[in-house]
Amino acid sequence: MTDPRTTLKPDTIERLHAHALTLADEARRIVLALLASGFEVVRKPDGSYVTSADFRVEERLRALIEAAFPDHGIAGEEYAPRFPDADFQWVMDPIDGTEDFVHRVPTFGCIIGLFYRGHPLVGVLEHPALATRVHGAYGRGTWHNDSRVRLADIDPATPNNELRVILSARENFSRHQDHGHRFDALARRFENHRIYRSCYAHTLAVIGAADAMVDYGNRIWDIAAAQILAEEAGGKFVPLQDLELPKAGRLLSSVFGKPGAVERLVTLLEQSPLP
Amino acid sequence: MTDPRTTLKPDTIERLHAHALTLADEARRIVLALLASGFEVVRKPDGSYVTSADFRVEERLRALIEAAFPDHGIAGEEYAPRFPDADFQWVMDPIDGTEDFVHRVPTFGCIIGLFYRGHPLVGVLEHPALATRVHGAYGRGTWHNDSRVRLADIDPATPNNELRVILSARENFSRHQDHGHRFDALARRFENHRIYRSCYAHTLAVIGAADAMVDYGNRIWDIAAAQILAEEAGGKFVPLQDLELPKAGRLLSSVFGKPGAVERLVTLLEQSPLP
Repeated sequence: MTDPRTTLKPDTIERLHAHALTLADEARRIVLALLASGFEVVRKPDGSYVTSADFRVEERLRALIEAAFPDHGIAGEEYAPRFPDADFQWVMDPIDGTEDFVHRVPTFGCIIGLFYRGHPLVGVLEHPALATRVHGAYGRGTWHNDSRVRLADIDPATPNNELRVILSARENFSRHQDHGHRFDALARRFENHRIYRSCYAHTLAVIGAADAMVDYGNRIWDIAAAQILAEEAGGKFVPLQDLELPKAGRLLSSVFGKPGAVERLVTLLEQSPLP
Repeated sequence: MTDPRTTLKPDTIERLHAHALTLADEARRIVLALLASGFEVVRKPDGSYVTSADFRVEERLRALIEAAFPDHGIAGEEYAPRFPDADFQWVMDPIDGTEDFVHRVPTFGCIIGLFYRGHPLVGVLEHPALATRVHGAYGRGTWHNDSRVRLADIDPATPNNELRVILSARENFSRHQDHGHRFDALARRFENHRIYRSCYAHTLAVIGAADAMVDYGNRIWDIAAAQILAEEAGGKFVPLQDLELPKAGRLLSSVFGKPGAVERLVTLLEQSPLP
């Protein structure tokens, strides 16, 4: 089957990419203003946080998308989906890492993805507090601020314990599924690991500042930008799991980054059978 | 026995504190210049990195200490100790998190500590790339940039899996000692964990942006600032281990941050008996 993205005109993709950057500009402006002025924090019943910034950013980005592309679908963390059957779907996490944002740890970020008939077309990881943005689009490359990203692969002689690997926290493996043993296996075999609990981890994996990331048990908006950014940088993205659980809803897991590192992580995960 | 720090005059401590801030200013200036101009990277035989920035910062800080306090001792990561029996000992890691520095991950930092007859007197955690500094001195409080830090304790009703805990990577538990099971026990019980692999973790624990940190199997310069900063902020610092291993040399482990969180982590570690 033809990749439907190949049927889109380059200037259509260029316009959509530019719009995603406008959305990221707005997210940055709103977040920096709220960091300066203060914002409200509410703790949800499950212990997670949401702030007035999450709502403000998602509302503003939705309004900008609806004005520019009235027939596009939108899925975001804080509001109900719009046009879930449309060909173009904007997917966003207005503030990924809200708990870090609340504590002013600067690794939080805004995640924006655009999909066309299920295929990733545009991605943005915007970190207002780090003045860092990674963005890209199908056929247009991945960019770290103003520099094109071209991922080099790992040296095959690098031992596992020297690879720079980022993991989701163990909670992501065990919260909705009994997959904690997979975290334990990863932590034992790849001991040069980091855990950020926010999308800065994605940024490091797609620009090559880490060798790869295992993103486990997250929502579609958490992972909305990683695939297009990893692939357009010359990296590899392997979806591990996409399933709908009765209580938890849809959970996605994936591994992405430099191809050789991704392959080693996927191999280890496949050797850690699920219950 | 009287705490020897109580015998020092307040203006002596003030002058030493001010000198530590001058050292941090210099570290910031050198590191920012080298981030802009580029620096040399060498991989040591053990796989760890060292850069021209590590040497440049340590050389400059040593020269400033020697000029101001010619009879003080100095211990740093890159050069041999000076006057190891002196009452005043400056301890520094010019760039903690060198591997992150090499990859331009901004969580690296410069660690400066001053000890008087073995007791921590002054501490600085300087993060040039985050424009963040935490500093403090005995009787003078802990400061996050220009704000005094006063740690609130955790709500005792907070479940373990909601505490914000930072761990050393599993490698720190297993590299020189067979303590990996302690990492596994911590990761299972405190699932809202983060791993930074550089001294930004210390910063978050002493300013209260995380609830506590377990710092495991590190060198004296890695932990040079944490105790005075945690204690002067109203937090707790519990030394877990200080031992000299035949091959690895001296290794230190400790837990610090908000008292209630520190106590829970120490209890769990005590329940994970060593081989």
